Amino acid sequence: MSAPNRSHGRKSIRATMVPRDLLEDPEDIVGAWKARVITLFPEVFPGVLGASLTGKALQQGLWQLDCIDLREFGIGRHRNVDDTPVGGGAGMVLRPDVLASALAKASRGTPEDRSQWPVVALSPRGRPFTQAMAQKWSEAQGVTLLCGRFEGIDQRVIDAFGIQEVSLGDFVMTGGEIAAQALIDATVRLIPRVLGNHASVEEESFSSGLLEHPQYSKPVDWDGRTVPDILLSGHHAHIASWRQDQAERLTKERRPDLWRAYCAQHGRDPDGDQEL
Amino acid sequence: MSAPNRSHGRKSIRATMVPRDLLEDPEDIVGAWKARVITLFPEVFPGVLGASLTGKALQQGLWQLDCIDLREFGIGRHRNVDDTPVGGGAGMVLRPDVLASALAKASRGTPEDRSQWPVVALSPRGRPFTQAMAQKWSEAQGVTLLCGRFEGIDQRVIDAFGIQEVSLGDFVMTGGEIAAQALIDATVRLIPRVLGNHASVEEESFSSGLLEHPQYSKPVDWDGRTVPDILLSGHHAHIASWRQDQAERLTKERRPDLWRAYCAQHGRDPDGDQEL
Repeated sequence: MSAPNRSHGRKSIRATMVPRDLLEDPEDIVGAWKARVITLFPEVFPGVLGASLTGKALQQGLWQLDCIDLREFGIGRHRNVDDTPVGGGAGMVLRPDVLASALAKASRGTPEDRSQWPVVALSPRGRPFTQAMAQKWSEAQGVTLLCGRFEGIDQRVIDAFGIQEVSLGDFVMTGGEIAAQALIDATVRLIPRVLGNHASVEEESFSSGLLEHPQYSKPVDWDGRTVPDILLSGHHAHIASWRQDQAERLTKERRPDLWRAYCAQHGRDPDGDQEL
Repeated sequence: MSAPNRSHGRKSIRATMVPRDLLEDPEDIVGAWKARVITLFPEVFPGVLGASLTGKALQQGLWQLDCIDLREFGIGRHRNVDDTPVGGGAGMVLRPDVLASALAKASRGTPEDRSQWPVVALSPRGRPFTQAMAQKWSEAQGVTLLCGRFEGIDQRVIDAFGIQEVSLGDFVMTGGEIAAQALIDATVRLIPRVLGNHASVEEESFSSGLLEHPQYSKPVDWDGRTVPDILLSGHHAHIASWRQDQAERLTKERRPDLWRAYCAQHGRDPDGDQEL
């Protein structure tokens, strides 16, 4: 007996003469963007993704989350999923045969074209996740995310399944589950109708290539600290120009890498204050 | 009446004649590393952090998680926490007065030295989180993490409280909660006794400045795919040398930025195959 899959989100309703087995595969929501997550900890999903806008969108069936319990495919009485590294070394490595069974299950009904359905392993060895990846993934039909825990993943399964290794950043976590949630959050919010009027995607950091300018709100005088006069001037052009200057200053100071890229794109001298 | 704080982890036991009010502030676990999280969604914590090694360490009292509900400090009947940006623009900005109250609560009993207790806002505008930051934070007494949602944070509160803005990476999420969990996970695992024998921190990606070499496990022949012969040779020096070559190749291919830094540190030519 295998454990039931966990599924979150609205089920599609289909006319059928056969009673639906609750232990069967989750039914697909037609048109929903799909996240399939292979993990040893299915119980930590949807986690944060079940709250706020991503949670509401999940309820509305704008996207669907299916967790595949890797333990289900483990070997022997103890359902082992890992073994020692060949050639020696610390830690354990997820077995290719176990992973292959889970990946086969995750691939049911998915397109073979990896651009239409990326298959991703979360790993500090991967290429860093970016807003551009989130955008591409949100335009695909769905994504399969493989979460490691402590261990590495056998290289043969990475090669055999065309798995793309993606990293959240230059730090190490105890597992891929939080990283998977981060990637899903960043992607789901780009699906049409998820954000609604709650935020303007266009004005955000990274869309312009610059970090966002400082923000101020009420009260205008807080504890003797006032907002910059220019913001109270009502001169929209002056405000826009001030904000652009601030965004450039911040980017130059905090992210020289983004600043150089921005300058290259806009024909600016990264070391000067003026256009070239 | 304010909502109770959520606290996770073992309570310390103190002799007292006064019955403990369950709605009072959580008691501190002596010697535990502390994460205080200011959020509009305290119910999503501990989330993934409650599972696996971080969850076990939380149970053991090696670290402590206190969530501070920002809504509790909201203004008026609707407990508003945000307002429109001064100077115009889309979105909402978290109010400085509301944030200040929450930050004051979070700072109770904490050292003023920010290196001993960093106060951090999760924001795509921040400096990217790194393993070095995780290491530093793990050596502090604790950290306060402020999670935004959709909104920016009023700049005056960032200045007044010496808040450090930190970004998870070059992508935008619906809120800071997942980012906070990622930062806490990466930090908590570096606290002594959390990892135990489960992983070798030393051999991991980023510790050496290179991405980790490919890993292989059992079966040695999987579906006609075998592991590289060298790993079966038993020649430890040859295996180590092969792994080093693979780590260098991967880093060069996927992370030219890390590769250049590694070469600079080791006196290597980043464009050549040999030492300078």
